[in-house]
Amino acid sequence: MIYITRRERFNAAHRLFRPDYSDEKNMKVFGKCSNPNWHGHNYELFVTVKGEVDPETGFLVNLKKLSALIRDKVIGKLDHKNINLEVDFMSGKQASTENLAVGIWQELELQIARLGAQLHCVKLKESENNFIEYFGT
Amino acid sequence: MIYITRRERFNAAHRLFRPDYSDEKNMKVFGKCSNPNWHGHNYELFVTVKGEVDPETGFLVNLKKLSALIRDKVIGKLDHKNINLEVDFMSGKQASTENLAVGIWQELELQIARLGAQLHCVKLKESENNFIEYFGT
Amino acid sequence: MIYITRRERFNAAHRLFRPDYSDEKNMKVFGKCSNPNWHGHNYELFVTVKGEVDPETGFLVNLKKLSALIRDKVIGKLDHKNINLEVDFMSGKQASTENLAVGIWQELELQIARLGAQLHCVKLKESENNFIEYFGT
Amino acid sequence: MIYITRRERFNAAHRLFRPDYSDEKNMKVFGKCSNPNWHGHNYELFVTVKGEVDPETGFLVNLKKLSALIRDKVIGKLDHKNINLEVDFMSGKQASTENLAVGIWQELELQIARLGAQLHCVKLKESENNFIEYFGT
Amino acid sequence: MIYITRRERFNAAHRLFRPDYSDEKNMKVFGKCSNPNWHGHNYELFVTVKGEVDPETGFLVNLKKLSALIRDKVIGKLDHKNINLEVDFMSGKQASTENLAVGIWQELELQIARLGAQLHCVKLKESENNFIEYFGT
Amino acid sequence: MIYITRRERFNAAHRLFRPDYSDEKNMKVFGKCSNPNWHGHNYELFVTVKGEVDPETGFLVNLKKLSALIRDKVIGKLDHKNINLEVDFMSGKQASTENLAVGIWQELELQIARLGAQLHCVKLKESENNFIEYFGT
Repeated sequence: MIYITRRERFNAAHRLFRPDYSDEKNMKVFGKCSNPNWHGHNYELFVTVKGEVDPETGFLVNLKKLSALIRDKVIGKLDHKNINLEVDFMSGKQASTENLAVGIWQELELQIARLGAQLHCVKLKESENNFIEYFGT
Repeated sequence: MIYITRRERFNAAHRLFRPDYSDEKNMKVFGKCSNPNWHGHNYELFVTVKGEVDPETGFLVNLKKLSALIRDKVIGKLDHKNINLEVDFMSGKQASTENLAVGIWQELELQIARLGAQLHCVKLKESENNFIEYFGT
Repeated sequence: MIYITRRERFNAAHRLFRPDYSDEKNMKVFGKCSNPNWHGHNYELFVTVKGEVDPETGFLVNLKKLSALIRDKVIGKLDHKNINLEVDFMSGKQASTENLAVGIWQELELQIARLGAQLHCVKLKESENNFIEYFGT
Repeated sequence: MIYITRRERFNAAHRLFRPDYSDEKNMKVFGKCSNPNWHGHNYELFVTVKGEVDPETGFLVNLKKLSALIRDKVIGKLDHKNINLEVDFMSGKQASTENLAVGIWQELELQIARLGAQLHCVKLKESENNFIEYFGT
Repeated sequence: MIYITRRERFNAAHRLFRPDYSDEKNMKVFGKCSNPNWHGHNYELFVTVKGEVDPETGFLVNLKKLSALIRDKVIGKLDHKNINLEVDFMSGKQASTENLAVGIWQELELQIARLGAQLHCVKLKESENNFIEYFGT
Repeated sequence: MIYITRRERFNAAHRLFRPDYSDEKNMKVFGKCSNPNWHGHNYELFVTVKGEVDPETGFLVNLKKLSALIRDKVIGKLDHKNINLEVDFMSGKQASTENLAVGIWQELELQIARLGAQLHCVKLKESENNFIEYFGT
C-alpha cells in the first residue's frame, strides 16, 4: 500500500451566513466572513489516493489522469466561482471549508475508484494558517 | 540607507470588468476573472520602507508602528471585503492587482513619511505565480 | 469525523543540557545546542483537532475561539520567552522539541474538549528540516 | 509514542520507460518523462521515525545521528546521480517516485532500528504538486 | 512605471563540464555537477516585465498572454529536456544557471516588447538556496 | 553583469535593550523583544553578489567557495550563539536586524572581492513577516 498526493489550486469567492439568522446574528457567529458583499481565497487542494504499485509501470496511478480528473470534477466547478451561488455540489450547504472538503470527497470518491485506486484524504487549505482534512466517514 | 519590509495579508473578493463592455467583451478581455458572481484571493502585501538606522534604537522604523499603520490604512479597508464595491481608494477604478498596488502606495506614502522613513516599494502577490511591484512614479 | 488544523507561531530561546552533566558531556551529547548563552528559534505550532461538523454553522469548531485558546494557553507563555527559565509547564524538563510538544498537548487537551472537539495532534516545527508530532499516549 | 521527521534533499536525473516497450509506447504511457536524454528533479525526502522519548536526553533520537544515517545510506547514493544508471538499490526497477520511496524505506528500516527508533514513514516530494508516502507493508 | 512578475516552472537534466578538460579537472572545477550520467533540477523561472498600466484594462500586460509566451518560447524548450543536448539556445554553451538565465533573456526580450512591455529581469532559481538574476547588459 | 544569491541559515538568541534605559523604558521602546532572559530566531541570510560570467566555467563565482566563505565568516560566528554576548562584530551594538545586516556586510565585503565578485546585497529575514536589505552605503 502506497499513498500519492496531488496538489491543485483554485480561487473562489464565498461568504458564511445563514439566511434564517439576522444580520447581527450572522456577524456575531461568522464575523467578517459573513460580509454580504463576499470575500475570497486562494484555496490549495491536496488529494491523497492509496493502492498498490503497478509492477509494469511503477505507478500507483497515472498522475496526469489523476490531475485531469480532479480538474474536471472539482477545480473546473470551483475556480473563479462563487461557492455559495455557482457550485452544484455545495447547493443548499453552508460554504465552510469543512463542508467544501466533504463535498469534494463526494465528487471524487467513485471517480478515483475507476482509476484503480482508493481516495484516502481530501485536504483543503484556506490560508497559510488553516486547513481541513477529511478521510471519509 | 537600509530597507525594511513588512508582510501583511488580506482576503478579498473582486472581479475584472468594464461596465461599458458587453458581457462577451468582458469575457474576451478578462476571461473567468470577469465572473459577475465574483471570485477572490489571499493577497500578500509586502511594504518596503527605506531610511537611516536610528543609532539609539538600532531601528529604521519601529516595526510595531509600521505594522499598525499598514493594518489601519490598508488591511482594515481590504480584508474580507469586495474590492469593487467597498474600498474607498479603489472607487471607480478597475480592480486589477496593478491598480490595487498603486492605490495602496497612495494610502501609505505620506503616513510612512510621518514615521520618519520613506516608502520604497509596494509588492502585492495575488497568487504563488503572479505579483506586482510599484516604486512610485 | 473531520480534522481542522490551526497554525500559530512563537519565537523563543532555549538550550539543551543537563545540570548533572559536565560541560564536556553536555557538549558531547547536545553539541552546540548546549551553548550556556542560549540560542533560539522561530517555532511553528500546528494544532489539529477532530470532531463532527455542526450542521447549523458548518464548523467543526469556531477557528477564532480555537486560535484564541492556543494563544492564551500556549503562545502567550512561550513567545519571546526563555523555555528553560520562564515557561511553567516546562519547569524541570529538558527543553527539547519532543518535551515541548508533549507539554503543549497537556496544556491544550482539556481546553479543546471544552470547545466540543478532541485534540488529535500537536505538530511542532523547530526548523525547515525538523519537526515533532505527538498524538497523545 | 512520539514522531520526529527529518528533511533531506537531493538532485537527480531519471527517466521513466520500459526497455520492452517501443519508443511510441513509452511516450504514450510515460509522456515526456520518458525522454531518452533524461530530465531531473530537486527531490525532498522526509523521514519520520517513532518511539519513546529518552527521559535522560529528552530526545527520541539524536537528530545529528539520524541526519548522518540518511545522508550516508540514501542521499550519498542519490545526490547528483542518475537514478536509472547509478543507484544500487534501484537497479532493475522502474525509476518512479513510488519505487524510489519503497527503495529508500528498505535502505533505512534496519538502520533506524539500530538507533533505537522505528521507521514510520518515507515521504518523497518530486515537485511542489506531487508527493509519495510509504509506511511499509 | 509598474512591474509584474510571472512564475513558471520546468524540470530538466544537465551537467557542468568542459570537453577540453580531463575528467579529473572537470571533477575538480565542477564537483559532482560534472557527473557524466547527468543530474537534474526543478527550476523556478520568474520573469519580470515593466511598463505603464493600460487605463482601459488596468493591466500592464495580459498575464495569460505573458504566460503563454513564456511557455512557448522557454518552458516548452526546457521542460523534461536535457539542457546540454536538446535546447537550441544553449547549444555550445556551458549549462550553468548563469548562462541559462542569459539565454532565457535573449529568447524573451523581443517577444515581450511585442506585448507592449519591457523585459526587466529574469530570475532563475535552481534550488531553495541558489538563484541567478539577470537584468540585461 | 549578473547577480547570484546564496541562502544560508542560522539560529541565534538575542534581546533588544539599552543598558542606559530603565527596564520600564526598555519595555516601552522594545516591547517583549527586551526580555532579559532572551528570545531567538531562525534567521535566513541571502547574500547577493554581482559580476561578470567567466566564459571558461560559465560561473560568476564558484558557489561552493561562496557558501564556504559565508559559513566561515558569518554563520560560524552566529549559529547557536547569543548575538548580544558572543558575536565579535556585534560587540557594543544594538542587536537589531538592521545592525546585524550591516555587520554581516562588513564581514563579507572584502572577502567577496577576493573571490572576484562584488557584494551587492545582504538580506536578512528574521521571520516570515520581516526582513532587512542592505546594499552598502
